Amino acid sequence: MLPRVNSAAIRRLNRTKVFHALRENPGCAQRDLSRLTGLDKATTSAIVTQMLEDGLVERTDAPRARRIGRPETALSIAPAAGLLVGARLEPGTIRIVTTTLAGIVLEHLQIAGSTDISTALDRLHRGIDEAVAASRPPATGGSGATAPPVRGIGVGLPGLMDHSGRLVLAPNLGWRDTPIRPLLEEALGMPVQVDNDTKAAAMAERLFGLCRGVEDFIYLTGHSGVGGGLFLGGRLYRGSHGFAGEVGHVTVVPGGRPCACGKRGCLETYVSEPAILARTAERGRTLPDLASVAVAARAGDAAVAQVLAEAGRHLGFALSHLVNLTDPGLVVLGGNLSTVAGLILPHLHRALEEHALEPLRRDLRLLVSPLGPDAVPMGGIALAMEGFLSAPSLAVGML
Amino acid sequence: MLPRVNSAAIRRLNRTKVFHALRENPGCAQRDLSRLTGLDKATTSAIVTQMLEDGLVERTDAPRARRIGRPETALSIAPAAGLLVGARLEPGTIRIVTTTLAGIVLEHLQIAGSTDISTALDRLHRGIDEAVAASRPPATGGSGATAPPVRGIGVGLPGLMDHSGRLVLAPNLGWRDTPIRPLLEEALGMPVQVDNDTKAAAMAERLFGLCRGVEDFIYLTGHSGVGGGLFLGGRLYRGSHGFAGEVGHVTVVPGGRPCACGKRGCLETYVSEPAILARTAERGRTLPDLASVAVAARAGDAAVAQVLAEAGRHLGFALSHLVNLTDPGLVVLGGNLSTVAGLILPHLHRALEEHALEPLRRDLRLLVSPLGPDAVPMGGIALAMEGFLSAPSLAVGML
Repeated sequence: MLPRVNSAAIRRLNRTKVFHALRENPGCAQRDLSRLTGLDKATTSAIVTQMLEDGLVERTDAPRARRIGRPETALSIAPAAGLLVGARLEPGTIRIVTTTLAGIVLEHLQIAGSTDISTALDRLHRGIDEAVAASRPPATGGSGATAPPVRGIGVGLPGLMDHSGRLVLAPNLGWRDTPIRPLLEEALGMPVQVDNDTKAAAMAERLFGLCRGVEDFIYLTGHSGVGGGLFLGGRLYRGSHGFAGEVGHVTVVPGGRPCACGKRGCLETYVSEPAILARTAERGRTLPDLASVAVAARAGDAAVAQVLAEAGRHLGFALSHLVNLTDPGLVVLGGNLSTVAGLILPHLHRALEEHALEPLRRDLRLLVSPLGPDAVPMGGIALAMEGFLSAPSLAVGML
Repeated sequence: MLPRVNSAAIRRLNRTKVFHALRENPGCAQRDLSRLTGLDKATTSAIVTQMLEDGLVERTDAPRARRIGRPETALSIAPAAGLLVGARLEPGTIRIVTTTLAGIVLEHLQIAGSTDISTALDRLHRGIDEAVAASRPPATGGSGATAPPVRGIGVGLPGLMDHSGRLVLAPNLGWRDTPIRPLLEEALGMPVQVDNDTKAAAMAERLFGLCRGVEDFIYLTGHSGVGGGLFLGGRLYRGSHGFAGEVGHVTVVPGGRPCACGKRGCLETYVSEPAILARTAERGRTLPDLASVAVAARAGDAAVAQVLAEAGRHLGFALSHLVNLTDPGLVVLGGNLSTVAGLILPHLHRALEEHALEPLRRDLRLLVSPLGPDAVPMGGIALAMEGFLSAPSLAVGML
């Protein structure tokens, strides 16, 4: 049977289509909106009128260069209509990004994290206040004297998040069975969208990165752990509990290094940033972060290069399972992994050749994300945008 | 954008809904069809009238026991309306099943297979002729003197089948880049549906087995190789080339036993029927099939039990990757694996405990398929039924 949808849900869906069309095509003519969204003219016109009234969209005169006849009106998401806030909570750091409603980055901020939950929430709150206070949208006729109102907050966390938004297990933070969403909402005083960090980053890759319009891809990322996001048939696949994509806990060395999850030989005990730093330290190289690891390896430090080679080999081995099992057309490498991508990719490819079936890896595209360390915070922005667009009304007073 | 569908496609979709409702509810009252299909009365009535005219559906008087008032007419798929043929092609054997249009089994047949393609096609042709000639639907007012016409044929093969139905690689048959569908259609003289054997079996599990109405499950099977079918969100997930689910070629022992695919240490070099027989033979036990392996292990032969324990451990290891990556709620074990399920499952569970994240395996259901060795031929029936229902008209003359 086809799912039954009510008209409010259809209105939200149509409004979301128009919003994304305007976001992806700033300065778009109203008459092009029907073509871009597949909606009829009356529907797009009604939605645009409401968005203009709510101050979400602004009209500017389009450049008349190649146009003859009456001037065309160009529509854009209003830069001063509001802010979105995205954040990544990690054991060691909290990273915050603010953007316009259209997802254009205004401020970045990185502060110390904590594995103590109330300390972490307190620091997040103060960090968001600081980032928001500094956020000024590009001057476009608006005043710019104060920061626009926050219209949505989204947070990505390294852990298993169930369908209800409960953090079931976050080994690296040491949190378990935590009602993280209500805790965040209480701490921040407004609705907050929460998701697993990698799933959030995969959504950012689809909305803002390399995978715009791509229906099937696998997103792999490494921070304190290693995660995977499976975009299958145009949707993020979540599985029966919501935990799909736990590539970081695929066993790559049976009986190998102990993992915070309680198992042994998990991929992330060889490939995450802390794992790589621990392994270089075991070889007498105490390095502060992956960037320094990359510098040392490029400078010819064989021991460091060896650790990265092993990381690439193990990541390629785990990826070979994903290739054999899901036959992806595109794999995107993001997060801190992109810092060392050039050094690990040759070893990853060799492992893929050894362990993935040739017809499945033959024309596999493997790309490095351009989002860098902002992938998860931008995932928070994607979540915040989704939350904002799912509200009954988009008017400021209705938030 | 929503996909555009034309009215012929909608008519076929509605007809398919009515067919499956009648198949799953033989003796159903016409007034119940709307509720079962979600279609309005006029639509179901028009479809039933056409199906009655085409001889696909028959009317019988419903038992009047609990009914007062005018007698209700019961509708069923007519047992004599036609046959479906399903087949499994393996290197050593060809297995054929015939059913009524509703999928009720009439005949089974197992004959010798061949890795020579024209020999295999010739034997398949003769086998189908024999099975069809012996097929008599249950007497229900029809004559029963001759076999009803064949309305569809479906074949499952152990290999990588691309989206166009080309057999790209079948390591165990030794076939590569073979236009298998046209070859089968030429040999059999009518349209033939073809798919990878495991994907076909997974479809059978959904239509006729344990997974009726289940939207997400993983089907694992072993014959000459080991395969996986990923049913995600109500659809068989095929991936970018159509090769998703190649669990048999997940490396479980890096540098391990050589596989027909060219890699080493693939799961199927430890778990398929030929692999298990080879490994018991290496230990001095020459056994003809998995059934004898199971008998020997149950009789206390430690060497044979050891081979099965290893098979269970390796299968559990590969399944742990599927669990960590796709978070399935249900896993069904089928094919020849069901013959030794009781002997390998304890070892499989131990491997899952060791390698799958606890929150993901906590309430995972692991069931053994009731379809036994007919899983793939019944998958052929599912394919044949799909092919039959997608024809422009279901009337006999239009085939």
